[in-house]
Amino acid sequence: MKGWIQAVGKSAMLAAAVAVVPAMAGDGYGEYRDRFEPLPALPPIPADNSMTKEKIQLGKKLFFEPRISSSGVISCATCHNPALGWADRIPRATGHDGQVGERNTPTVLNSGFFEAQFWDGRADTLEEQALGPIEADIEMAMDLDEAIERLESFELYREMFSAAFSDDDDPINKDNVADSLATFQRTLNTPNSPFDRYLRGDLQAMTEQQKRGMEAFVDTGCIACHSGPALTDSNFHRFELPGSTDEGRFVVTGEESDRYRFKTPTLRNVAVTYPYFNNGSVEELSKAIELMGEQMLGQELEEETVEDMEAFMHALTGEMPDVTFPALP
Amino acid sequence: MKGWIQAVGKSAMLAAAVAVVPAMAGDGYGEYRDRFEPLPALPPIPADNSMTKEKIQLGKKLFFEPRISSSGVISCATCHNPALGWADRIPRATGHDGQVGERNTPTVLNSGFFEAQFWDGRADTLEEQALGPIEADIEMAMDLDEAIERLESFELYREMFSAAFSDDDDPINKDNVADSLATFQRTLNTPNSPFDRYLRGDLQAMTEQQKRGMEAFVDTGCIACHSGPALTDSNFHRFELPGSTDEGRFVVTGEESDRYRFKTPTLRNVAVTYPYFNNGSVEELSKAIELMGEQMLGQELEEETVEDMEAFMHALTGEMPDVTFPALP
Repeated sequence: MKGWIQAVGKSAMLAAAVAVVPAMAGDGYGEYRDRFEPLPALPPIPADNSMTKEKIQLGKKLFFEPRISSSGVISCATCHNPALGWADRIPRATGHDGQVGERNTPTVLNSGFFEAQFWDGRADTLEEQALGPIEADIEMAMDLDEAIERLESFELYREMFSAAFSDDDDPINKDNVADSLATFQRTLNTPNSPFDRYLRGDLQAMTEQQKRGMEAFVDTGCIACHSGPALTDSNFHRFELPGSTDEGRFVVTGEESDRYRFKTPTLRNVAVTYPYFNNGSVEELSKAIELMGEQMLGQELEEETVEDMEAFMHALTGEMPDVTFPALP
Repeated sequence: MKGWIQAVGKSAMLAAAVAVVPAMAGDGYGEYRDRFEPLPALPPIPADNSMTKEKIQLGKKLFFEPRISSSGVISCATCHNPALGWADRIPRATGHDGQVGERNTPTVLNSGFFEAQFWDGRADTLEEQALGPIEADIEMAMDLDEAIERLESFELYREMFSAAFSDDDDPINKDNVADSLATFQRTLNTPNSPFDRYLRGDLQAMTEQQKRGMEAFVDTGCIACHSGPALTDSNFHRFELPGSTDEGRFVVTGEESDRYRFKTPTLRNVAVTYPYFNNGSVEELSKAIELMGEQMLGQELEEETVEDMEAFMHALTGEMPDVTFPALP
């Protein structure tokens, strides 16, 4: 490429650059591209929890800190494992004393873009979400006061909380644990997937099959719920997965209309965040696509359409965040 | 420093370099330094398990692979956690279904330098050691045949085992899992601690207090067992820790003389691999030093001596291996 640029010279390059506009319009998918938006590098940052370096560093340590679990060996990163797409790749979350929960671990990647957290939306924000798994009996099973005490026993945490929350007299507290964890999680985004590069104008970034998959994704109606930068509307839709007895959002609201409703999961990085659905019972992406066609769209998708959509899904795998092991105290 | 070099010029620098030799001899600890050896960058590599890039890469993935545990969430890295000095910083190892074992997790750092593995030396080499925790009921609780089957189900592992063991018709097998894990572990070394830099001639790398601690370490006799590059003789010594009923090496050999004998643990990185002793019952390094004085040397160490030794122990923390999260299939 570089040789070519040198050979053709500057004036030819300008002509080529100008030619990009008709070429973009010319791949025939312009109206489909317009339905999507690329993933920004950062999600919205709440006004009352600014993103500071100190909070990110502290939140990172807390995310990997197993001693805020009652066993001392389970951290957020146990189920949200960076080696496994920041999830666990087993059907249902397995936590304290090997207890198996009812639901599949959702990835934390791009979770700052969601307007509802957990499968049932029982938290709106990452701040509201953060402490739940620490306390949950089948996850980290930790009394929050005891977690705070353990953190207070480390000089490094005393320093880091003071640095991150310098206005607080008593900075090691539950709210600040939640705020730091949420801040760290807002850094865990995966921009620049082939799909994003395609949306930004690199028409070679997706294959023809992936473009056909994108087309089918729009035409069949998947985009009705899987919309926005993270390909989720953060809304709740009725979905009765064969074999699942989970009542979904009904458990939170008690509203009959919420029975069996679950939050639309993000499709970002879906190829590396198997298995699928609220109980993780489906391992193959193609089967997940077929099942969605049947259950949500009421149609049996053609085999070729499923293959195209699966190819498209692979274009949604972005650049993984560059996170190294923290050194814990 | 650079400015200084430019200012004094080359001839003055040569004079300064020559002056290093009398300065080294002149810190008064030459005979103590001679009793030690710096940690090499790599331990001995066995003739029948050469260290190849392919085995290191595969062994790294396997080390972080939770799906070779029966729960699917416990990997080698759960207890040998890179964020926690490649150990777990809890008294006794906690594994499958939250079961708590009898012994403290030893760090894997520099374990390639040991001539015996486990607290009781029931394995001689890392290759012999590697599969034990995968099978152990209270650790990963996994049937090895099932572990092999799970690995075989991933295309990436099929490719990586073939690349690492290209002479084997059926490369995914127990021996090769052990060989790759051992190979990866031999890369987990911590050279260039202040102590190593001191031994190599940088006489400013340790403080005066640390040098006094080194002197006391030799004079009181600690060095009798904590010898060699990893500061362990890899031998077994009788040690009855108050409150411990663990019979140590007796469990392996059945020899009466081995009752309550445990392998001398490495002192490399001892400041970041608390808590101490076979049951992890001692959290403070100073208390561990006092207890060793009483139990192994039969003397009550002076408070100042303990402080000096503790300072010396801090000089044994080396450069942590630069390991990033692997991407698992």
